[in-house]
Amino acid sequence: MNRKSDPSIQKWAPWMRRALELASLAEGNTSPNPLVGAVVLDAEGRLVGEGFHSQAGEPHAEVWALRQAGTKSKGGTLIVTLEPCCHQGRTPPCTTAILTSGISRVVIALEDPDPRVSGFGASLLKEAGLEVITGVLEEEAFSQNRAFIFRITNGRPWGVLKWAMSLDGRVALPNGKSQWISCKEARDWVYRLRSKCDAVIVGGGTLRADDPLLTSRGLSNPEPIRVVLTSGKELPLEAQLWDTSIARTIIAHGPEFVEGRIKQMKSAPEFVSLDSPGPLDLLKKLVLKGCNRVLWECGPSLATAAIEQGCVQELAIVLAPKLLGGESSMTPLGDFGFTSMSQVLDLVAGSTRKIGTDWLFSVPFHKD
Amino acid sequence: MNRKSDPSIQKWAPWMRRALELASLAEGNTSPNPLVGAVVLDAEGRLVGEGFHSQAGEPHAEVWALRQAGTKSKGGTLIVTLEPCCHQGRTPPCTTAILTSGISRVVIALEDPDPRVSGFGASLLKEAGLEVITGVLEEEAFSQNRAFIFRITNGRPWGVLKWAMSLDGRVALPNGKSQWISCKEARDWVYRLRSKCDAVIVGGGTLRADDPLLTSRGLSNPEPIRVVLTSGKELPLEAQLWDTSIARTIIAHGPEFVEGRIKQMKSAPEFVSLDSPGPLDLLKKLVLKGCNRVLWECGPSLATAAIEQGCVQELAIVLAPKLLGGESSMTPLGDFGFTSMSQVLDLVAGSTRKIGTDWLFSVPFHKD
Repeated sequence: MNRKSDPSIQKWAPWMRRALELASLAEGNTSPNPLVGAVVLDAEGRLVGEGFHSQAGEPHAEVWALRQAGTKSKGGTLIVTLEPCCHQGRTPPCTTAILTSGISRVVIALEDPDPRVSGFGASLLKEAGLEVITGVLEEEAFSQNRAFIFRITNGRPWGVLKWAMSLDGRVALPNGKSQWISCKEARDWVYRLRSKCDAVIVGGGTLRADDPLLTSRGLSNPEPIRVVLTSGKELPLEAQLWDTSIARTIIAHGPEFVEGRIKQMKSAPEFVSLDSPGPLDLLKKLVLKGCNRVLWECGPSLATAAIEQGCVQELAIVLAPKLLGGESSMTPLGDFGFTSMSQVLDLVAGSTRKIGTDWLFSVPFHKD
Repeated sequence: MNRKSDPSIQKWAPWMRRALELASLAEGNTSPNPLVGAVVLDAEGRLVGEGFHSQAGEPHAEVWALRQAGTKSKGGTLIVTLEPCCHQGRTPPCTTAILTSGISRVVIALEDPDPRVSGFGASLLKEAGLEVITGVLEEEAFSQNRAFIFRITNGRPWGVLKWAMSLDGRVALPNGKSQWISCKEARDWVYRLRSKCDAVIVGGGTLRADDPLLTSRGLSNPEPIRVVLTSGKELPLEAQLWDTSIARTIIAHGPEFVEGRIKQMKSAPEFVSLDSPGPLDLLKKLVLKGCNRVLWECGPSLATAAIEQGCVQELAIVLAPKLLGGESSMTPLGDFGFTSMSQVLDLVAGSTRKIGTDWLFSVPFHKD
C-alpha cells in the first residue's frame, strides 16, 4: 500500500479503475467466486478487450477479455483486478489462457487470498518471462472483494446486520407492528442491499410477526437464498417464504424441529439440520451453499447472538425521523450482559447519508 | 417573505446581517427579552455605531448604537433586527431615542410579536416623518428569536428535548449506568446548548440515577436555572444540584411533597408548588421566571409527558456508535399508547452533523 505513489503503479491506475468497474457489474452474482474484471491493451496500448466474471461456472474475467482481444493481445498488456488463477476449477486455469494469448505484461491489483492461487499465479507468469506488476489500486480491489476474502480467510460468510429504527430507538410498536418505520426510498435501498447478498436470514419470531418476502424484488437473479433459523419445534404452515417459486428458501433448525406438513407442500423449502441452531453453525452450513455475504434481518435475540458469535462484520441501520415510544416496544438488540460502560461495544463511526426522509448508517464491525 | 428579491431589501441585507451577528453575541442571556442587534450609518452611509441588547434591564440595542454614533446619526440610517419598542418598560421607549437622535431612516427585519409593540413602533416612526423599511432578512431574524416569539405567542417557553443514545437506541445500561454514552465533543456541545437555554429540567429519577450538575460549565453567566420536577414525596438529601452557589436551583413539586431537611440547608434551592406536577404546569411557572427557552434533559416518562403536553418544539439527539443492548435498558421515551404505525409521531428530518465520534441530530417538532 506504500507503493501508491510509485509511477509504474500510477500509470496503470486508470485502466485498473475500469477493470474494477467491470468487476462490479456482477455484484451479488459471483459467489462463491470473487468479483473480477479485466482489460486487455494491445502492444501499442490501445484497448482491445474487456471482461468480467459473471457467475460461478462461467469463464473468468481474463478469458472474456482475451477472447475479445483475439490475436491483438499479442505483445499486449492484461490488467486484472485479482491475481489470475493457476488451478483447474470448474473452468481451466487462467494462467494457461494468458500464456497462450501472447500477452507480454500482466498488471494485477490484488494477490488472490485463495490458498490454491495466492502468489503462485503471479510467479508462474513471471517464470514464463512475462512482466508482472502487482498492487495497482490494491486497497480498492481489497474493498470490492472483502466479503470473498473474509470467507476465504475465516471459513464463514461476511455478515451484514440491518435494522430500521425510529429516532427513539424502536424497531416496532408494543403490539409488534413495524410496517413501515422506514420510508420508501430506504426500503428500496434494502432491496438493493439484498441483491448484493447471497442469503437473507430471519428467525422464527420475525417470520411469525412480519411474514416477510425477503426478496430483492427482482434486482438479483437468482434471488438471495431466504433462510429461517429456528430453535423452536414448529413454524407456521402459511408463510410467503414457503413459496419457493420466487426464491429458494432454507429452514435451518435444531434437533427437536418437526418438519410436519411444511415438508409435504408443493415446492417445499429445503431443510438443514443443525446440532445447535445458532448463528455460527448456520453460517458454516451456508458457506457450503456458496455464500460469501449474508444479510441478517432478524429480531433482537438472534441479532445479539449473531454479534456475540462474530457473525456480523457490518451494521446497516436506517434511522427514521419518527417517534414510536412504548415501554415494551421492540429494540434492535437484546442483552449482552454489560454492567459497565467500559464493556459496551465501541464502534467506529462509519458513514452516514440521507435517503428519502431517513438517514442511513453504515458502521463497520470488522477491522480490515 | 415574497419581498426578498426587492432591491430596497437587498440593499440593506449586508448591514442587517451584521446587526443579526451583533444580536447573537448575547444568545442565552437576554430572556425574557429577545435578541436584538443594531447598526447606525451616517448620512453618507458610513458605519458610525453598533450595539446589541446584552441582558434584561440593560439598554436596548438601538440605544447602544445611537449612543456610539452620537451626533453623526443626524440624517443617518438605523438598521435594527427587531421593530423598536414604543413602550416604557424597564428602560425608556426606543422610538423616543430614535426621534431625538435625528435619524432619518429606520430599516427593520422583523415586526415585534410583543402585542405592546407589534406594528405600533414602526407606525410611530413613520408618522414622525421617518422613512421606514421593513422585512429585511425577516426569516433570519424570525429564526434567531423563535424561542422569544414562541413564548410571546404561546405563553410558555420553547422546549428543547435532548438525549444521548447508542446505535441500538439505549440511553443507559440495564443497571442505569450511562456515563458516558456520548463522546467528549458531544458533551461539550451539550454545555453550549445549556448556555443558550434559560432553564435545564430533569425529573426526580434522573436526579437519583445520575446526580447531575446541569451547568454550562461556565459558558453562560448566570448559569441556566436548574429545575427538578418531582411528583414524589421526597428527594435525596445529597445532590450536586443543592449547591446553589454554582447556579440557581428550583424544586418544582406536587402538593404531597415534603420539603423536610432540604429546606433547612445553607443556600437551599427554591421551592415551587404545582397543583399537578406536570410539564405544562411547570412551564407556566418558568415563564414567570423569565424563561424563553428550556432544555429537557429528563428520563423517558417525563420526556414523553413533555411531548404529549406540547412542551417540546425541538429534539437534540446525540447518537453514539456504541451498542449497549439489554432487555431492560432505558430507552429515550416511554409509552404514547400507539397501536398503529399511522399514529406515530412523524417528524421532518431536520439536520445532522458529525461531532467527535458521534452524530448530532436537530429535529424540529414545531412548524414555524
